[in-house]
Amino acid sequence: MSAYSALEARFRKRSILGGASAMLGWDNAVIMPDGGAEERAEQLAVLGVMGHEMMVDPAIADFLDAAETEELDAWQQANVAEMRRQWRHATALDADLVEALSKATSRCEMIWRRARADNDFAALGPSLEEVISLTRQGGQAKAAAFGTSCYAALLDEYEPGCTEAEIDRLFRDLEAFLPPFLSAVLEKQAAGPGFSRPGGPFAEDTQKAVGLDLMKALGFDFNRGRLDTSHHPFTGGIPDDVRLTTRYEADDFTQSLMGTLHETGHALYEQNLPRQWRHQPVGAARGMALHESQSLLVEMQLSRSPAFLSYVIPKLQKAFGGTGPDWEFENLMRLYHHVEPGFIRVDADEVTYPLHVILRYRLEKALLSGDLPLGELPGAWNDGMKELLGVTPPDDRLGCLQDIHWPGGAIGYFPTYTMGALAAAQFYNAAEQAIGTLPEQVERGEFTALTDWLRTKVHEVGSSRSTNQILEAATGQPLGTEAFKAHLKRRYLTE
Amino acid sequence: MSAYSALEARFRKRSILGGASAMLGWDNAVIMPDGGAEERAEQLAVLGVMGHEMMVDPAIADFLDAAETEELDAWQQANVAEMRRQWRHATALDADLVEALSKATSRCEMIWRRARADNDFAALGPSLEEVISLTRQGGQAKAAAFGTSCYAALLDEYEPGCTEAEIDRLFRDLEAFLPPFLSAVLEKQAAGPGFSRPGGPFAEDTQKAVGLDLMKALGFDFNRGRLDTSHHPFTGGIPDDVRLTTRYEADDFTQSLMGTLHETGHALYEQNLPRQWRHQPVGAARGMALHESQSLLVEMQLSRSPAFLSYVIPKLQKAFGGTGPDWEFENLMRLYHHVEPGFIRVDADEVTYPLHVILRYRLEKALLSGDLPLGELPGAWNDGMKELLGVTPPDDRLGCLQDIHWPGGAIGYFPTYTMGALAAAQFYNAAEQAIGTLPEQVERGEFTALTDWLRTKVHEVGSSRSTNQILEAATGQPLGTEAFKAHLKRRYLTE
Repeated sequence: MSAYSALEARFRKRSILGGASAMLGWDNAVIMPDGGAEERAEQLAVLGVMGHEMMVDPAIADFLDAAETEELDAWQQANVAEMRRQWRHATALDADLVEALSKATSRCEMIWRRARADNDFAALGPSLEEVISLTRQGGQAKAAAFGTSCYAALLDEYEPGCTEAEIDRLFRDLEAFLPPFLSAVLEKQAAGPGFSRPGGPFAEDTQKAVGLDLMKALGFDFNRGRLDTSHHPFTGGIPDDVRLTTRYEADDFTQSLMGTLHETGHALYEQNLPRQWRHQPVGAARGMALHESQSLLVEMQLSRSPAFLSYVIPKLQKAFGGTGPDWEFENLMRLYHHVEPGFIRVDADEVTYPLHVILRYRLEKALLSGDLPLGELPGAWNDGMKELLGVTPPDDRLGCLQDIHWPGGAIGYFPTYTMGALAAAQFYNAAEQAIGTLPEQVERGEFTALTDWLRTKVHEVGSSRSTNQILEAATGQPLGTEAFKAHLKRRYLTE
Repeated sequence: MSAYSALEARFRKRSILGGASAMLGWDNAVIMPDGGAEERAEQLAVLGVMGHEMMVDPAIADFLDAAETEELDAWQQANVAEMRRQWRHATALDADLVEALSKATSRCEMIWRRARADNDFAALGPSLEEVISLTRQGGQAKAAAFGTSCYAALLDEYEPGCTEAEIDRLFRDLEAFLPPFLSAVLEKQAAGPGFSRPGGPFAEDTQKAVGLDLMKALGFDFNRGRLDTSHHPFTGGIPDDVRLTTRYEADDFTQSLMGTLHETGHALYEQNLPRQWRHQPVGAARGMALHESQSLLVEMQLSRSPAFLSYVIPKLQKAFGGTGPDWEFENLMRLYHHVEPGFIRVDADEVTYPLHVILRYRLEKALLSGDLPLGELPGAWNDGMKELLGVTPPDDRLGCLQDIHWPGGAIGYFPTYTMGALAAAQFYNAAEQAIGTLPEQVERGEFTALTDWLRTKVHEVGSSRSTNQILEAATGQPLGTEAFKAHLKRRYLTE
């Protein structure tokens, strides 16, 4: 057996184990009674440690060295490169740090839930301090091993190969563009007609039926996945058993609808990953930026387009028995295109969302470097909100306590949301040009040309190329801001 | 660290891994889309192999030898004995046989599903032959290691320490008692008034609400468990997250009701296992006979008693809006006490059920020894049904193709159903004597005295004693047929 084959066998086993964890994680969020939490944490910890042990086995290092000299085809080479990257992440941390981080983040997430509910930042302080300190230790160990900055080493977990310089280039551009653009949009909105929200209640069953109908239209394979309900919508599971969740509000169907469509974008990426590379690193989704690009392409680019709204609004009118001015196309389009600076990132529209991300990017770098002492975070947060969005959160619950990411040790994750938004605009623009009659097809509820394009250009590529290589092959350009800005201008100042 | 502590740590990890498998197995039966089956089988196989590898690690043998000479308290000693028993089972088989058995049974179960639907025993033949042959090999390897018969070695997996002599003693008694008793019951039934089945449809939500209500009354802890729906009702999960399932028929609420109560008996055993011995072999349920005794105690002894029916019938009348003669106590009691020889074991009443089991016991021993060639199974099955139950299945679907046990490699399992029925009668009789006013309490919906008795006498004992020691301590006798026969006579010839 070649070293390469030995690696394939080991990574396959590790991926299967990871799949088991993914299913248990889904159950955790969707099904599990509270009393099962402690045992579930034990199960996930045992599986996690076993996966880590497989990676740090010295045999892997030998196999990697040998495989890098073997004659391999392009996918196999990409597979080895991705194995090496994952191996470097795993071996950079000693077992004690892995365990300490796992325990500290579990604890901090629990404390965070209470602290957020109680609007009590002080209660979170010591525990979050510990998580940041351990994350910094991990980042420094990886930085030493990879020869990058500490922040870039953390970023590489979520968006392989991404550098601070790339983010700075993109974000500086958005920082210059968005605030004046936002003012112009708000001005135009204020001058135009407002919108009114259709009145509920909207039966959960009906909301779900509409969601299922749209998932089906978009090509979600229900033989290999499900739609369920959870407090925080997410896409979990594995490529052959993708578990989407959404949540339903009785007085507002609009959020669950767009939430379901967003997760469907993630799900299609997972379901269409290259089957022949199942369980190999090269067969997995490329990174968080591309993953978010697929969800935002469906939610923001496709589903809020006039063509899609023309297609879906008659369905909504029929499903909910909606009649009258609230249910007219123009009103619902204004509702779905409404822009308003707010306190909460997950509720933000696509114009203001990047400003939330830029704030977090600034702050997490400063926390990591130590430039920002944790005690000063609430003040720095509120100053940043004022500067970027023109609003000041009335309390920390609506401010620096809103996200689970930092308590969970996820520093370096936030930028991928906005990179995903940029990539979504770039992909959609290229797809429109390639397909020619995309809006007409969308208006008729025909999505095959679009999803085929995404499948061949993005999904089936897996991790065989870098994010920027995938973008260049599909759109002619590496990741940039032009398509996104053009999209915003067209939708919010022209349409 | 003592050898004993080292063992505790290793068995704990293995049990946590087993818990992960249990949750995935539940998901498999209840939630999973069909397309996920292949990956799920991979996940369970990887987890199973890892659990097996932990057991056959040579260090375990050394720790066991050493721990058996260490100074331990009674529970620790029982724990080591149970570890030794599990270790002997795991190490008796070489890895190739374990893998071959796992693959052959997965394949055979799939073929069986189709063969049963098609009523095609010939299609099952080669695959079942392979499973029986591999099971025989495994049994012989264990028999050589344990110094028992091949059948007893297999039996020990399901009912530790049980011998063929014990089963023969119990079953010979039942074989002599049941056929004439059955005739007498059928005669009495024919002479008395018949019963009529309340007409449906019965809304699934209502059936479920009644089931949940009764589970709650019996003390099921919903913070550590759930009720869901599956094609074949079962109790899965782990003690702190017990997953019950049942199924609902629109035109008959009686089966789902008794099915839910049956599984609740299993569930209470799991939820009440000794918490301080969680994840240790001594903290697990004693064996399949005692497990079935708890489900049958709730379903057959308690829930079909006149006292319980007096308690539950007004609830049913209210829930389903049932009025008129079909809904009267006397009619529903006759329905729930109706005896009728049939073809299908899982649909059998408590009088005829043991005869189904006795037939399977005879046949599986003959298949294992080779005395009965597989090709002759259908004929032998039908002859046995005629002899024991007086009926002849019209086809193999209603005959030797009905059970999944043999295709799944479970030879030695069937006797535990009837041992459980005997133990249930013995426990209930002892509980009635100890409590004094049990029927009066049950009629008022008060179950605490009964469930407390079961908890202290059975559940919390875990595997710290043998099945017969538990029975003797609780009832004054090892497992026997007297209480069961007395129960049948009282219910079916006297009441």
